Amino acid sequence: MSRRTIKEYRAEREEGQQRLLDLDHLGVQRFLRLDHACYEDKALPGRTKELLGLVASMVLRCNDCIDYHIEQCVKAGWNKDELADAMNVALIVGGSIVIPHMRHAMLSLDELLAEQ
Amino acid sequence: MSRRTIKEYRAEREEGQQRLLDLDHLGVQRFLRLDHACYEDKALPGRTKELLGLVASMVLRCNDCIDYHIEQCVKAGWNKDELADAMNVALIVGGSIVIPHMRHAMLSLDELLAEQ
Amino acid sequence: MSRRTIKEYRAEREEGQQRLLDLDHLGVQRFLRLDHACYEDKALPGRTKELLGLVASMVLRCNDCIDYHIEQCVKAGWNKDELADAMNVALIVGGSIVIPHMRHAMLSLDELLAEQ
Amino acid sequence: MSRRTIKEYRAEREEGQQRLLDLDHLGVQRFLRLDHACYEDKALPGRTKELLGLVASMVLRCNDCIDYHIEQCVKAGWNKDELADAMNVALIVGGSIVIPHMRHAMLSLDELLAEQ
Amino acid sequence: MSRRTIKEYRAEREEGQQRLLDLDHLGVQRFLRLDHACYEDKALPGRTKELLGLVASMVLRCNDCIDYHIEQCVKAGWNKDELADAMNVALIVGGSIVIPHMRHAMLSLDELLAEQ
Amino acid sequence: MSRRTIKEYRAEREEGQQRLLDLDHLGVQRFLRLDHACYEDKALPGRTKELLGLVASMVLRCNDCIDYHIEQCVKAGWNKDELADAMNVALIVGGSIVIPHMRHAMLSLDELLAEQ
Repeated sequence: MSRRTIKEYRAEREEGQQRLLDLDHLGVQRFLRLDHACYEDKALPGRTKELLGLVASMVLRCNDCIDYHIEQCVKAGWNKDELADAMNVALIVGGSIVIPHMRHAMLSLDELLAEQ
Repeated sequence: MSRRTIKEYRAEREEGQQRLLDLDHLGVQRFLRLDHACYEDKALPGRTKELLGLVASMVLRCNDCIDYHIEQCVKAGWNKDELADAMNVALIVGGSIVIPHMRHAMLSLDELLAEQ
Repeated sequence: MSRRTIKEYRAEREEGQQRLLDLDHLGVQRFLRLDHACYEDKALPGRTKELLGLVASMVLRCNDCIDYHIEQCVKAGWNKDELADAMNVALIVGGSIVIPHMRHAMLSLDELLAEQ
Repeated sequence: MSRRTIKEYRAEREEGQQRLLDLDHLGVQRFLRLDHACYEDKALPGRTKELLGLVASMVLRCNDCIDYHIEQCVKAGWNKDELADAMNVALIVGGSIVIPHMRHAMLSLDELLAEQ
Repeated sequence: MSRRTIKEYRAEREEGQQRLLDLDHLGVQRFLRLDHACYEDKALPGRTKELLGLVASMVLRCNDCIDYHIEQCVKAGWNKDELADAMNVALIVGGSIVIPHMRHAMLSLDELLAEQ
Repeated sequence: MSRRTIKEYRAEREEGQQRLLDLDHLGVQRFLRLDHACYEDKALPGRTKELLGLVASMVLRCNDCIDYHIEQCVKAGWNKDELADAMNVALIVGGSIVIPHMRHAMLSLDELLAEQ
């Protein structure tokens, strides 16, 4: 077993996300829409909030969420130095337990930058 | 690397569980028995407590624990609508960081329902 | 400084909750409504979901959330033995780190039962 | 027992922080300096990183850390609407378990704005 | 509201602990005994395991558990330098979110050393 | 997908760690050095602190961190009974949610002991 690449993550996410979207539960559907809307431009620009989402995902140590937000951050135009500086906040706040997720995030970031 | 199926989970769990059961440590053995006894009928029926175990596993974000409890929930007769309603509590309490685990849970649930 | 009683909790919660309700942010308001709706009767009865909310709050170790849900559980008619049996699931899943919160929950429960 | 105000927080923090600064342990002293340096202007401006620190503190549910970062955010010029929009990210990512901390944060924010 | 002293912690803990011991629930009683037995001499000396309990309590950020284990550590003869070195592991593993709990632990430690 | 072996972990860790070491960010580099230095002999011997690192990793439920520290513990001469006794502290403090990580740890330990 080796690291799940961004391509593999996208395929797996899509399959699971479809199950959620197919669920006949109003509360779940509303939460999914609220989650999506949360990163749109409002008092803060959406791109700043993607950075917030990335750091929150790192301190909570969720690779799926990291992969999602790091892709959005790259699309929003944050560069590698800026993302490393944001990740450093997650590392200092969350400690060495965050290191494996930061390794994962850097590998994902390199994949995403190579795709461009 | 793709998602671990319920069948793969069962095989992996069995191998690891055997190592725990082979451990010559009274405290560990007693905890394992206490853990098992906790879901038996008592003031609350065992099937209600399996639902509690599932939601606790989801907000603590542990896929192995989710797979264990969702199988017990299916055996206890909870249907898909009821399980989705319980999972919605986990989603609201635990937030979007729970979403990848809810995707996993829905895929596991579909596997389990297909086995029946 | 001594333990915050249920009465003190109610006063403090009300003051803070008002600030949230006064916030001019659509996402926050929608989440608050979704949170409220999540415990209404649906595929599962609301009273079962209050029990799920209590156990989720205990394993996530939040006394404010415990006080909120334990009051709802008492209103929904769960008795002390049933609540202790639910809390035992939280204790086994979450471990000894949950004990201080279970002490808090039992003191809150006694206050709530004395009010009745 | 009522909510700890920002003024009380500052006094308590100062007493405890002095104990840490007095500790004769090189690793601890280096970590404290690294923590401080992490929010200085670098690839990202310090004020953006204070927002990251606030959201990380909220999803990890630490009122002391929230009070520290919200004061830095106010000093850095973020207004109430922007801070509410950042907190909404924490609320969506972290779920309803974050609500008591968001109540606390809004009360702290009002105190800080009143001081200005 | 100011910091809860060790004396106040002891009184509050005793009241809550009595409620747990009074609970008519076999699973809870067995867990409490298992928790106690876990820190007795076995393959590792109890005093080493108190240090493990302290660090676990710090990274999980529970002041009640910190106060309990730091008192046991002082009784077991660990000195201030050794405890600071153990706490540094918690700080590095758990990050700056642990700092408020390390402040609390140092204040508790000074109280405990003054009692001797 | 089956369990990642210690050999696979080492290869994956090395690739990711190199990305971190290549990062042009002073804060990240300093944290990595601080993390390394934290387990050296000081007021406590390094081997005791490796045990603290293992238990912290288990209650925070990070398999990568568990694999790292369990290898260091084996190198430092802790035997299987002592490691099981330390893991029991993690199990009691952290609860049944730690069990999947304890299974993982025991499988890793058997691999490491077989290598010797």
